[in-house]
Amino acid sequence: MPEKALEYAHANRESALDDLKSILRIPSISTLSEHETDMLAAAEWLVDQLNQLGFHGRAIEAGGAPVVYGDWLGAGSKAPVVLVYGHYDVQPADPLELWDSDPFEPEVRGDNLYARGASDMKGQLVAHLNAIRALKETTGLPINIKYLIEGEEEIGSKHLGNFIDANGDLLACDFCLNIDSGIIGPETPSITYALRGLTYFEIRLEGPPGDLHSGTFGGAVVNPANVLASLIGKMHDHRGQVTLPEFYDDVRELSEEERSDFADLPQSDQWWRQQSGASVLGGEQGYTATERATARPTLDVNGLLSGFTGEGGKTVLPSRAMAKISMRLVPDQEPDKVHESLLAFMREQAPPGVSWEVEMLTGSVASVMDRESFEAGAALDALEAVWGVPARFKREGGSVPVVGMIKDMLDVKTLLLGFGLPDDNLHAPNEKFHLPNFHRGIDTYIHFMSSLAP
Amino acid sequence: MPEKALEYAHANRESALDDLKSILRIPSISTLSEHETDMLAAAEWLVDQLNQLGFHGRAIEAGGAPVVYGDWLGAGSKAPVVLVYGHYDVQPADPLELWDSDPFEPEVRGDNLYARGASDMKGQLVAHLNAIRALKETTGLPINIKYLIEGEEEIGSKHLGNFIDANGDLLACDFCLNIDSGIIGPETPSITYALRGLTYFEIRLEGPPGDLHSGTFGGAVVNPANVLASLIGKMHDHRGQVTLPEFYDDVRELSEEERSDFADLPQSDQWWRQQSGASVLGGEQGYTATERATARPTLDVNGLLSGFTGEGGKTVLPSRAMAKISMRLVPDQEPDKVHESLLAFMREQAPPGVSWEVEMLTGSVASVMDRESFEAGAALDALEAVWGVPARFKREGGSVPVVGMIKDMLDVKTLLLGFGLPDDNLHAPNEKFHLPNFHRGIDTYIHFMSSLAP
Repeated sequence: MPEKALEYAHANRESALDDLKSILRIPSISTLSEHETDMLAAAEWLVDQLNQLGFHGRAIEAGGAPVVYGDWLGAGSKAPVVLVYGHYDVQPADPLELWDSDPFEPEVRGDNLYARGASDMKGQLVAHLNAIRALKETTGLPINIKYLIEGEEEIGSKHLGNFIDANGDLLACDFCLNIDSGIIGPETPSITYALRGLTYFEIRLEGPPGDLHSGTFGGAVVNPANVLASLIGKMHDHRGQVTLPEFYDDVRELSEEERSDFADLPQSDQWWRQQSGASVLGGEQGYTATERATARPTLDVNGLLSGFTGEGGKTVLPSRAMAKISMRLVPDQEPDKVHESLLAFMREQAPPGVSWEVEMLTGSVASVMDRESFEAGAALDALEAVWGVPARFKREGGSVPVVGMIKDMLDVKTLLLGFGLPDDNLHAPNEKFHLPNFHRGIDTYIHFMSSLAP
Repeated sequence: MPEKALEYAHANRESALDDLKSILRIPSISTLSEHETDMLAAAEWLVDQLNQLGFHGRAIEAGGAPVVYGDWLGAGSKAPVVLVYGHYDVQPADPLELWDSDPFEPEVRGDNLYARGASDMKGQLVAHLNAIRALKETTGLPINIKYLIEGEEEIGSKHLGNFIDANGDLLACDFCLNIDSGIIGPETPSITYALRGLTYFEIRLEGPPGDLHSGTFGGAVVNPANVLASLIGKMHDHRGQVTLPEFYDDVRELSEEERSDFADLPQSDQWWRQQSGASVLGGEQGYTATERATARPTLDVNGLLSGFTGEGGKTVLPSRAMAKISMRLVPDQEPDKVHESLLAFMREQAPPGVSWEVEMLTGSVASVMDRESFEAGAALDALEAVWGVPARFKREGGSVPVVGMIKDMLDVKTLLLGFGLPDDNLHAPNEKFHLPNFHRGIDTYIHFMSSLAP
């Protein structure tokens, strides 16, 4: 059945790529307030696309960046209703000097398209819209589709929970297809069945009320930058385990079956070195890199700032020191309990002479999904049809908070099906999307949606 | 003898203050290359002043910022030749948002004049020039004076050693009067007899070659920001002592007499709290705050930078992390040996998965001076004549590398006589100079120079 749609897609690859370049030119950075106009422009771009496809598209006020919603329910009541989730916001592009081309002027080099948001996740959005177009322009779309495209994924989806909660009827569906995902390698199609959760904190320390001369006062007063470093240093033990009180209490240990599945994946330590560019790996002792990166909790410094950081030297005792610290969570850790663990650690360890505050910026639980569902089978088949090799199940280390929200509020399962690669430089300079996967992604979505026809 | 000169100075206080404001308006920041023109303007300002006073003033090329030199040798061969040392460069003014007024538009509020460089050390320079003026305009200058005013003190006087070495005849003198100094309190005149040395390092760590997504790779790779924090944390033990190998080997312990002198100074822990604004003090166990800040070595973080430090959150594993770390040294520590200690620590402690480099930006030894010299007695008398109370001997925690250079290269002693206060916010926002001390400083220099007449 999907042959005609596939033909259409193949004949219109240039046009699909132009669509992608067009939305990548909009710097929709949700965390920086100066990009508010760009956020609205990206939402408007999507609404236009949806309306061109015959959907009823609109940008809905949701408390922060608008949610783009659009539906087409013309496949009849016997056909399933699939809620397609994505996001149109992107991470900041800094440090700009490390990009080889303008992050918001997409550039094709070799097999890749370079731009902020290419892989995370405008590439998948545009691929799915073009799969819809191919079906609509040929045999017709055999299922009902609702799009839910938020603008706050990169800042913790802070208004999405309220939006879903308030719009249960609008979003009612049989399952959610979350296209913000990836595969193991360009020739290794896979489906993600588990995700880690995330807590993100800013820790701010203050010592003396103003910066002081390190000659006059060095030795007499407590230096908050020294203290911050010492505190962070104590957050891991010599075995690479996190030392926050009760941090591991709720961690679900890996089953022998999972460890054996992991060992079977094409993700050796050498693969991890290759993907990350790191010459030496590291982390919690007793686990493989795949286990550490996808199924074990972590604590990482994401940012440090204190005192003088310019050219040359300034002999200042800084008054303040700041760290951004995030923890990736696994089932069954709870963000609020992890927050409490961090607060308990700070209360125990912070010395007199500094005051501190901990702000929790983000909190989401991990999730594990059902490998045995009909949709999962259909997705495996679609991947195999396009790639010509069997698809695998894997876990991912990232966080997709919306999966938990949709389960809680709409009571439906989520299937993750996307085409990013581990070396796509997500959240980093020179983010890229592998263009063969962009086109195979369109084909896969066509196969997948076709196989859901009643 | 100095009465007429004192009268002149008292009648011309407004004009002296205007001189000070005038040079404070020039942002002569030596560490930032974009201020090169301002550096030249400040040097030119001083040359003009010297020439107005009948000195032969000039700005001499010295490899970096020019050295301002000027002499007047009309007092005859029986009168001593005093080399007056100062510097016209200042520290950067950031963080600008913490200043209550423009750092380069001097503003009088209450008894203080606020501006970058007011206390460190344009205030002393202008005070001394006005003492010269008062003597020259009345009874005449009874001694020979050479000015040596450098533009690189805040960046470690990196070309001054070569300059002094190459100009031994030009700078030949009976002793050096270093006016880059201060007193204990507005009503407690004092002379500094010992200074600490300084080593300043930038430590740069690199992990994976690019920033990575903390979801995808967190747990698998070594995070250089985590490592940097851990390394810095290990640089002190639980007693507040520095753990670098052999760090204390050459430290000259305090004598019982010095400890008893220190205990006698009006520098209680409460005084240190008041001066620093810190509600709680801290540091090496077993020493008073005065001992820790003036006669014990330290290791302080002056700056930290890694990853994302903007508004909100970015889930990045940073590729790089940087710390600026300085150590204040005491007799008989050597900068090169301390550098070796740091390198040895890094070699022992840095884990696999990060590469590191340590750059030494500054290195100078500590110094202890002769309390019993004729000049020291003359300075004590001058202070007592102006303040009406006996002056004290004290140590200072800061570093004046030129003291060691002048001893080594010109073979003369240095007397430190300046009027900064510990709470002047040196190197920090809202730097100030206490104006009553500015005027008493002029009077003190008049008394002091008069008492050196043959």
